[in-house]
Amino acid sequence: MKAVVFNKNGLQLVDDYLRPVLKEDEALVRVAVAGICGTDLEILEGYKGFEGVMGHEFCGVIEEINTKDFAKYEDRDNTRLEVGARVVGEINCGCGSCSNCLRGLKSHCLRRTAIGITGRDGCMAKYVALPLENLHPAPDLVSDKEAVFTEPLAAAFEVTEQVHIRPSDRVLVLGDGSLGILSALVLNLTQADVVLVGKYPKKLDVVAAQKVQTLLLEDLLRQKEINEQSFDLVVEATGSLDGFELARRLVRPRGKVVLKSTVAGNNELSLTPLVLDEITVVGSRCGPFAPALRALEKKVIEVKPLISGIYAYDQAFDAFELCRKGTSLKVLLDFC
Amino acid sequence: MKAVVFNKNGLQLVDDYLRPVLKEDEALVRVAVAGICGTDLEILEGYKGFEGVMGHEFCGVIEEINTKDFAKYEDRDNTRLEVGARVVGEINCGCGSCSNCLRGLKSHCLRRTAIGITGRDGCMAKYVALPLENLHPAPDLVSDKEAVFTEPLAAAFEVTEQVHIRPSDRVLVLGDGSLGILSALVLNLTQADVVLVGKYPKKLDVVAAQKVQTLLLEDLLRQKEINEQSFDLVVEATGSLDGFELARRLVRPRGKVVLKSTVAGNNELSLTPLVLDEITVVGSRCGPFAPALRALEKKVIEVKPLISGIYAYDQAFDAFELCRKGTSLKVLLDFC
Repeated sequence: MKAVVFNKNGLQLVDDYLRPVLKEDEALVRVAVAGICGTDLEILEGYKGFEGVMGHEFCGVIEEINTKDFAKYEDRDNTRLEVGARVVGEINCGCGSCSNCLRGLKSHCLRRTAIGITGRDGCMAKYVALPLENLHPAPDLVSDKEAVFTEPLAAAFEVTEQVHIRPSDRVLVLGDGSLGILSALVLNLTQADVVLVGKYPKKLDVVAAQKVQTLLLEDLLRQKEINEQSFDLVVEATGSLDGFELARRLVRPRGKVVLKSTVAGNNELSLTPLVLDEITVVGSRCGPFAPALRALEKKVIEVKPLISGIYAYDQAFDAFELCRKGTSLKVLLDFC
Repeated sequence: MKAVVFNKNGLQLVDDYLRPVLKEDEALVRVAVAGICGTDLEILEGYKGFEGVMGHEFCGVIEEINTKDFAKYEDRDNTRLEVGARVVGEINCGCGSCSNCLRGLKSHCLRRTAIGITGRDGCMAKYVALPLENLHPAPDLVSDKEAVFTEPLAAAFEVTEQVHIRPSDRVLVLGDGSLGILSALVLNLTQADVVLVGKYPKKLDVVAAQKVQTLLLEDLLRQKEINEQSFDLVVEATGSLDGFELARRLVRPRGKVVLKSTVAGNNELSLTPLVLDEITVVGSRCGPFAPALRALEKKVIEVKPLISGIYAYDQAFDAFELCRKGTSLKVLLDFC
């Protein structure tokens, strides 16, 4: 099968990659659309030492199911995962038996694999294999190109899953990449006083059109004194090492900083201000698919304006090239 | 009056320091006993650039009150703050009008002073002045030498004030200084599975006698694989820069690290593991006096075994010298 593969020779288009062999309780999904994420770019830099098929954001159609127990995989709306169903998929696969899996924390399984990130081929291919329990039917009203946003949108919903946002809170989101933008859109649903800070006016326009307040980073820094220690919550989604220190300066005493950025390298910082101001720092990663799918179905969050480009499989290099430009948002690969 | 003073000439005993002049709604307290805290040692190293009378832990007797509104200062048990009352005192004095004071966060007042730490003379003197709203009557069953522990014990209660400890949690406290020990004793009240880790067998014995499990740091590090990522909550009270990284390695995914140490200097660390494991870090400083006084009154926490030495005012240098030894716990200055 066709696949976008990363190995010691770099990024490659492989036309005859072996089709996945299903294990018990797995499904084979024919990929329609895959998304490129910041994590994919980090993998190309050596993150996690991953080799194999790239990609963890997708929408596709179930082509084969290998289970003896279909009843186990009925969705809450009694929609069944069956051959022909259009689906999206959670990326983490748990062992089912470690202390975290037994707590229901599959995404923190000590032996977990994650498609396209660690120990398991990803979705930038004709087919991807995933445990049936990872799959969710895509609602009819959500197109393939919208559904591919389910995974990053779920990561944005992880913020409200972890932290109680009061509607009277002042909230700042740092970073106008896809994750920062989706986080701002999710947080804005609470009717809190949400501001997205970024570097690119065109990206900020995308969220401003959905009634989120925006501010250029340079303007924020110019008004430093006004904003210092004034936000109840700051979401750090800059993807850069110095984002944390800025977030720490902007959050009020007893406030919260949510960390979304995974960045290579070390920070040189003092933790004592966290103690003095009793700040809470919350690490935040993958999130719940159900609310993301509901928001997409109800169109309360519009993701189409975040699409910067759609490329065919054989143009994957161009797609990655566009991603590397700070000006792009979500770039998709079309496998249909 | 006699006072233990720190200024550019270092630590000094001053016999003729000016007695505090009371502002509106303040009380003059004749100090009976004062405690020496780790923060005091840091002040001697230049922390906060403080100059003036040292000390923020005390028990004393109200000698004078300057207010037009006595009724405002009735305690919840209808015990009045009156001349002759034995009291302990919260250390932070708020302006009453900034955004944090208006939220009820006096201890985070943007213009706060704190006795013996910032902008206000401390309690290692014959007299200390404090706002009446900072004072709490010491229960009859709590001696002066026990009552002086109210402030650090309140800081330990701040952990359970901020974080919900489940009785089924595995909790690790790192650090066998006074704050680590008091935190372990407070956390142990929840009947969670609490372990205190320290370097000094004699200090660990003090908490072991109060039915807290203890472990030598060297034994913890030897069993590293067993303990890694296994605690629901880790309280970092080592007072050292490398305590955080150890805490981070010991806490389970989705667990919490409470930071109690204020340490000069920067950490060189990566925040990405906090994101991947969705760890919450909670900065924690001063705490509520009422539960601390209740625990002292009911003797559910015995603080007397933590007293390593009691010195008269004119032996204050020896007292500070003993404090600097890692083997000591709480050292008191007797002003009676």
